[in-house]
Amino acid sequence: MFISFEGIDGCGKSVQSRRLAQILGNEGRQVIHTREPGGSTGAEEIRRLLVEGDGERWSPETECLLFTAARRDHLERTIRPALAQGKTVITDRFADSTRIYQGAARADLRMIVDQLHDLMIGTDPDRTFILDIDPEIALARGNARGGTEDRFESLGLGFQQCLADGFRHLATEFPDRVRLIDASGTVDQVAARVRAAL
Amino acid sequence: MFISFEGIDGCGKSVQSRRLAQILGNEGRQVIHTREPGGSTGAEEIRRLLVEGDGERWSPETECLLFTAARRDHLERTIRPALAQGKTVITDRFADSTRIYQGAARADLRMIVDQLHDLMIGTDPDRTFILDIDPEIALARGNARGGTEDRFESLGLGFQQCLADGFRHLATEFPDRVRLIDASGTVDQVAARVRAAL
Repeated sequence: MFISFEGIDGCGKSVQSRRLAQILGNEGRQVIHTREPGGSTGAEEIRRLLVEGDGERWSPETECLLFTAARRDHLERTIRPALAQGKTVITDRFADSTRIYQGAARADLRMIVDQLHDLMIGTDPDRTFILDIDPEIALARGNARGGTEDRFESLGLGFQQCLADGFRHLATEFPDRVRLIDASGTVDQVAARVRAAL
Repeated sequence: MFISFEGIDGCGKSVQSRRLAQILGNEGRQVIHTREPGGSTGAEEIRRLLVEGDGERWSPETECLLFTAARRDHLERTIRPALAQGKTVITDRFADSTRIYQGAARADLRMIVDQLHDLMIGTDPDRTFILDIDPEIALARGNARGGTEDRFESLGLGFQQCLADGFRHLATEFPDRVRLIDASGTVDQVAARVRAAL
């Protein structure tokens, strides 16, 4: 089974995806936890180009291509081999992030994202959890993290609100695959909601 | 006017493209000389991922995406602004390289290259010079250069011969745009052939 966690920066994807991996591992499943952009040696190198530097470093179109390149490497070298061994793969972000981040940056880009996805990726997770949270709370968490990987947080609250709307809309666009999870409350409360939804 | 030089590794593209830039500059034109992969700040960073490391570092599909990302950045930040200012742009490689290198690596990839090109680049040079040379001579030149940018040379003579055939075929595929130039002889002899063909 291939599971993704999605949502805006600071919504708790990283913590909750790891927590689910731990829970399923405790239940006796073989689980690998991975993330995007990154998740394989090559994709992590592409990640550095994407998450560091200023917000205008790449045009939205170039950014789509770099995300798709990293995703293709991640899929080939990490996700598909693990699924072929019967493992459960849990990833912190996958293609929905590109759909929403690029589509929010410029409406006509969503079409390009979808065409690139169909041409070069062609697969989506079996189940996607979107952690739904107030962008102001999430942005404060993201900024509190510090570090140099702040290119998207630096784009500000208005952009994060636009993203949050986009992620919510995915649940209606892909009702079979996507589950919207209330991400308010403690880590344990949110983890219990995720496990129940699975 | 937008001009590209193409051909296998070691065919003399770099020398001849610079020489043509110099000749046209002496004739009073405003000319910029650029190259791929690279030619803009972002594209040069992507270049490092592409030309260093071993031959199997990226799958052909991921490689296509990285080349297209670098080309999009190069087009947006270097080529289009220069053309808009009325300059002549001469580039050492453009999209034909991806068509031939990836298509030679695996036949079905040429379709993906073409679809990515149509979706994300959508433009070709006004004139393309293919420097046609015996792959054995070219490979010896390429290896003599040394340095760390040897990922493609390391793929060997058989691959270079396959590339040389592919480049020759481009002249029949795009007869309006592409000119095949005999690249044997001295630098001055080849430069004179290029200037005459322009």
